[in-house]
Amino acid sequence: MNYVLKNIPVRTEKPRTTGFTMAMDKGLSLREVSDLIETAGDFVDIVKLGWATSYVTKQLDEKLRLYKQANIPVYFGGTLFEAFVIRDQFDDYRKVLEKYELSFAEVSDGSIVLDHKKKCEYIKTLAQDVTVLSEVGSKDAAKIIPPYKWIEQMRKELDAGAWKVIGEAREGGNVGLFRDSGEVRQGLVEEILTQIPEDKIIWEAPQKAQQVWFIKLIGSNVNLGNIAPNEIIPLETIRLGLRGDTFDHFLEK
Amino acid sequence: MNYVLKNIPVRTEKPRTTGFTMAMDKGLSLREVSDLIETAGDFVDIVKLGWATSYVTKQLDEKLRLYKQANIPVYFGGTLFEAFVIRDQFDDYRKVLEKYELSFAEVSDGSIVLDHKKKCEYIKTLAQDVTVLSEVGSKDAAKIIPPYKWIEQMRKELDAGAWKVIGEAREGGNVGLFRDSGEVRQGLVEEILTQIPEDKIIWEAPQKAQQVWFIKLIGSNVNLGNIAPNEIIPLETIRLGLRGDTFDHFLEK
Amino acid sequence: MNYVLKNIPVRTEKPRTTGFTMAMDKGLSLREVSDLIETAGDFVDIVKLGWATSYVTKQLDEKLRLYKQANIPVYFGGTLFEAFVIRDQFDDYRKVLEKYELSFAEVSDGSIVLDHKKKCEYIKTLAQDVTVLSEVGSKDAAKIIPPYKWIEQMRKELDAGAWKVIGEAREGGNVGLFRDSGEVRQGLVEEILTQIPEDKIIWEAPQKAQQVWFIKLIGSNVNLGNIAPNEIIPLETIRLGLRGDTFDHFLEK
Repeated sequence: MNYVLKNIPVRTEKPRTTGFTMAMDKGLSLREVSDLIETAGDFVDIVKLGWATSYVTKQLDEKLRLYKQANIPVYFGGTLFEAFVIRDQFDDYRKVLEKYELSFAEVSDGSIVLDHKKKCEYIKTLAQDVTVLSEVGSKDAAKIIPPYKWIEQMRKELDAGAWKVIGEAREGGNVGLFRDSGEVRQGLVEEILTQIPEDKIIWEAPQKAQQVWFIKLIGSNVNLGNIAPNEIIPLETIRLGLRGDTFDHFLEK
Repeated sequence: MNYVLKNIPVRTEKPRTTGFTMAMDKGLSLREVSDLIETAGDFVDIVKLGWATSYVTKQLDEKLRLYKQANIPVYFGGTLFEAFVIRDQFDDYRKVLEKYELSFAEVSDGSIVLDHKKKCEYIKTLAQDVTVLSEVGSKDAAKIIPPYKWIEQMRKELDAGAWKVIGEAREGGNVGLFRDSGEVRQGLVEEILTQIPEDKIIWEAPQKAQQVWFIKLIGSNVNLGNIAPNEIIPLETIRLGLRGDTFDHFLEK
Repeated sequence: MNYVLKNIPVRTEKPRTTGFTMAMDKGLSLREVSDLIETAGDFVDIVKLGWATSYVTKQLDEKLRLYKQANIPVYFGGTLFEAFVIRDQFDDYRKVLEKYELSFAEVSDGSIVLDHKKKCEYIKTLAQDVTVLSEVGSKDAAKIIPPYKWIEQMRKELDAGAWKVIGEAREGGNVGLFRDSGEVRQGLVEEILTQIPEDKIIWEAPQKAQQVWFIKLIGSNVNLGNIAPNEIIPLETIRLGLRGDTFDHFLEK
């Protein structure tokens, strides 16, 4: 840090398993990737190439190389996994992971209907090759999954070999963990936390108010995802109690 | 594309007359222009320097040169045309087009009251020198133009020599084709489509939900405009059924 | 400007004391700083490194050097001042200002409770070393300060040595001068203007509709702050009556 302030919350350091920030790259240029690494690389633990953007991204090899050089793992959004599965191309998907030497993959069912046993099999299979993040929650605002189901699915996916489970929110932060308005489904989150260790969960929380809510509930070192590249530095200040939103919170402790 | 997925909608290729994406540059730096070209140039068919931003843009010549090198035509937003017309400087406007060697121009009346015959004369005159895009719809949310008038104006503007007509939405997507809330005026769009060939229309649709709506109605190869530079790649995935929003839509077909 | 348009409002020139634009840097990369300077440097009068982002910003020295070379003063957001004060580290804060050779500083009480006499003493003390911007208004949406208090505080802070006073809005534009919805507290602003000279005030106005409102009320050369880097060029066109929002306004005059 650039100067000394007393009583700042202690942050975990890389490689982090808690206090983890997942950034969303939905089409950054190579130069923007370099900038992100240079400016905020210490605070980015993993990068998701959102949904199937990797399909149309130019210079994908070079982009992956830049992140690799910076020791930031990259994975392709779960929608890509689903796009392969729905087309009966799961083997092709594995080849894509291999071709791009990815060490992480996401398994999700946000856009497709997937028998949960089958989903867990995919997790198990992929976990032989890569570190698996599995996502719970639908991208369809109308599909409300009750808390006990979230918990059951998360537990089974972790048992099947997922490294961590992700709570769905999309880029907008208006489904899954959140209401249409972006408001957190607080009861859902609190119930999940009674059953699943918080270090095993990454909460997608693209909106500032959502990040603040999780940091106040769980602490500076909560795992957060779907963070826009230009919000990485702001998020770090929120984690440290150095933005208005959490300024009081950490002082009161 | 970076790998093979089956049953992906077929996209038109450059130079496109349908499936056309117009990007909005409201003050990109030269480096950001280079990045846009490098990262998403294949998916950008034309660039609008929004409203009169070209008046204050530094290094305008160099910016135009970058787009030209990439074979991406550029035009100045219609508000600039109106700013010249309202000041009785139409001849100066033509000189500006000539000075910057622009091959496209927009004629609009979103901020001024312009007799429609006069508007068509401007289109006719400019069409002698450049390819004309003409825009229908007011920037004033209070001015509701009934569908039959949209159709009548679009038809006359095409007859006067406009290459395509643009449905107004502004950068925000909250006027013209859309309600304050951003919701599409569906009846308006559907009525227009009964009379005007869809390949002659560019729909300004800056918000994701608006893009999704048009793609579901008209297909992958609908002409869309006012797309923010960092939404070009995301839009391309929506056109291809590779984002949650249109994932089912193309599979069901 | 790139071409001649008649009857364009006259803008002040650098170094400006009115018609002043304060840009918000909340984590720009060095390259983005260079781009901002190159593209819109003439329209940026001062830069705020938002709240305490300077604490976590990499290559802070280099960033400050870039702005300095471009003759754009930089200051650290008031929340940083408050973070030092609440920790009884005011002397350390002064050393930070000295270490980074800053010539501007902000004094605020948006996140802490600070006796107003004490706040004025801080202003007085810091004004010996640097040019002080002092901010009035709370970051807490629930704390409504009545207009007479705003005026009293602004006056006393100017008397204590503040160069200008800032009306609080945050990055979001939804507190202080504005309602939750972003709507301007018009009565508040108008009452302030009966007592405090408008050239002594910088209005934080991150949202376009807010900028438009102030420009229509006070004119092209109103002092505005918390402008996002990619909104500097758009704001300049609004000041000049060259965007739909103020197009009529300046013509009617």
